Amino acid sequence: MPIADATLDARLRVVIDRKTKPLGALGRLEALALQLGLIQRAVTVRLHAPQVIVFAADHGLARQGVSAYPQAVTRQMITNMVDGGAAISVLARQHGLALTVVDAGIVEPLHDLAGNAHVNFIPRRIGPGTRDASIEPAMTQDQCQRAIASGREIVRQLPGNALLVGEMGIGNTSAAALLLARLANFPIESCVGRGTGLDADQLKHKAAVLERALTKHATARAPLDVLATFGGFEIAMMVGALWQAAHERRVVVVDGFITTAAVLVAHALAPAVLDYCVFAHRSDENAHALMLSRLGVAPLLDLQLRLGEGSGAVLAWPLVCSAAHVLNEMASFESAGVADRDVA
Amino acid sequence: MPIADATLDARLRVVIDRKTKPLGALGRLEALALQLGLIQRAVTVRLHAPQVIVFAADHGLARQGVSAYPQAVTRQMITNMVDGGAAISVLARQHGLALTVVDAGIVEPLHDLAGNAHVNFIPRRIGPGTRDASIEPAMTQDQCQRAIASGREIVRQLPGNALLVGEMGIGNTSAAALLLARLANFPIESCVGRGTGLDADQLKHKAAVLERALTKHATARAPLDVLATFGGFEIAMMVGALWQAAHERRVVVVDGFITTAAVLVAHALAPAVLDYCVFAHRSDENAHALMLSRLGVAPLLDLQLRLGEGSGAVLAWPLVCSAAHVLNEMASFESAGVADRDVA
Repeated sequence: MPIADATLDARLRVVIDRKTKPLGALGRLEALALQLGLIQRAVTVRLHAPQVIVFAADHGLARQGVSAYPQAVTRQMITNMVDGGAAISVLARQHGLALTVVDAGIVEPLHDLAGNAHVNFIPRRIGPGTRDASIEPAMTQDQCQRAIASGREIVRQLPGNALLVGEMGIGNTSAAALLLARLANFPIESCVGRGTGLDADQLKHKAAVLERALTKHATARAPLDVLATFGGFEIAMMVGALWQAAHERRVVVVDGFITTAAVLVAHALAPAVLDYCVFAHRSDENAHALMLSRLGVAPLLDLQLRLGEGSGAVLAWPLVCSAAHVLNEMASFESAGVADRDVA
Repeated sequence: MPIADATLDARLRVVIDRKTKPLGALGRLEALALQLGLIQRAVTVRLHAPQVIVFAADHGLARQGVSAYPQAVTRQMITNMVDGGAAISVLARQHGLALTVVDAGIVEPLHDLAGNAHVNFIPRRIGPGTRDASIEPAMTQDQCQRAIASGREIVRQLPGNALLVGEMGIGNTSAAALLLARLANFPIESCVGRGTGLDADQLKHKAAVLERALTKHATARAPLDVLATFGGFEIAMMVGALWQAAHERRVVVVDGFITTAAVLVAHALAPAVLDYCVFAHRSDENAHALMLSRLGVAPLLDLQLRLGEGSGAVLAWPLVCSAAHVLNEMASFESAGVADRDVA
């Protein structure tokens, strides 16, 4: 499943370099066009039926006061997404992107939420929120496996060849920070951040709670163990979704801090997943930059976003399309009769 | 013409802060939404019939070997833009943006270029390229005034309330560097860059040529004098276009290094022009960051672009639209029944 292909890589570079522009003048778009070509194994690419998918779940850790918002907001925001009032709903609509919202396990189910013409709602609950990772493992191994399998299954059912991945879950910057701390072996102070808007004292409290969780589960070291112990249902489902999308050679647009944490886990399990990922943006959440650099990747945008929901992924989507259009449609020096620098 | 309005500003901030997201979580999009509201004097905004306009011209300075490409490329690229094969054509088409290309004064006119259903071509030639600024002023005062008036007139005739501004002209990073050096009083070494791709020796030569031009015209200090002495027809036309767009309260999306140089001049003549400008990206051209910081502005994108043509402006356009959609369409905590942090 790695996308590397020396012959195609060389062909694509020639195609891109002969476009009517100074060599390299389209910067990051050129690297993106190359990646799209390698993913689709072609020198012209086609992005069809792109899907936004938002995985939502609740976190036992939220009971430790690690978030500025009450846990009920996870559930309320799912309704808001389906009703069309959330940022992700507005942005997906702007770009004509299909939106699917998954209840991966919030505390109280949404029995009467049916989805509508614009938004697909999928209840796929692993449980009523995870347990409190500062006390016991967030998930059982079985729950974690079921979440991953659900993520795979959901993506398998979605049409198209591009997936924009986001999440929602009060408390989930804590889960993501724990995953980063353990998988990358960073001190918790460098992994923790203000989330939805903690003040300095609350941030200190959050770091202390997370440090306690890390100490409590000192032996959880293997990626799947780490995911089950510190992760969330939505994060485990994203791991499955990322794996499945890469397996089907879909282009994957990764949103912010929590989605990237899922990439961190997926990458630890199957390194080639990274080849399919386009990193949308550098979040304003403190440790996202560290997480991205740990993965050795550079995001497209840096707009001080810290919302999640896949909002950054959707904001970056037109750039992904632009890379495809440039590759497919721009004239070459030869076809346009434009003098290249060598001719000067 | 300044957009400042304390009452509306406060109203817009309340509207934005009550949207269903953590306070400030949409980062730069929130500041952009505020700017759009102030420009349009409303708490809901409407972007209609957005126009991309590319001003093209040739430069006498190009004869001094300051560019990696032959001067003929300016003319060839106009044809390529109208024919639909240039980056700007591809990107404008992607977003359904009307594209106008102006011959502001290339060396040899394009008599048989008529435009087409997709691209509007306007011949508005001030002359057959500027004169060589290292020897004599690039324009006469009269040419400069005519170029500014043409820019105003062209924008006046365009529909819509948003203008995306770009340029094309072999040699025009030199003109832009000279404008920056003189208007901001920076040494030429910090203003000069590799343009379309000079090597280290060529860059040294470029700096020496530009230093000679600055020494030659030591007394040109007033903004209009500086523009006539060191500028280009396309740059002077952009100055007029920017002024007219601001006068009509259009949203202006500014492309890269050369377009920003036109903003630098326009701002020196009429500071409020800046209020209408959205800076699309930080160019890979060395001195663009310096120029932006001189203006005290931060661009939306940083994609290592150095193409011009308005390509960066069009790449940033969906973000401008997103800011408008967020302002207009996102639900509030109240309307969506989502608990705010205060309720926790």
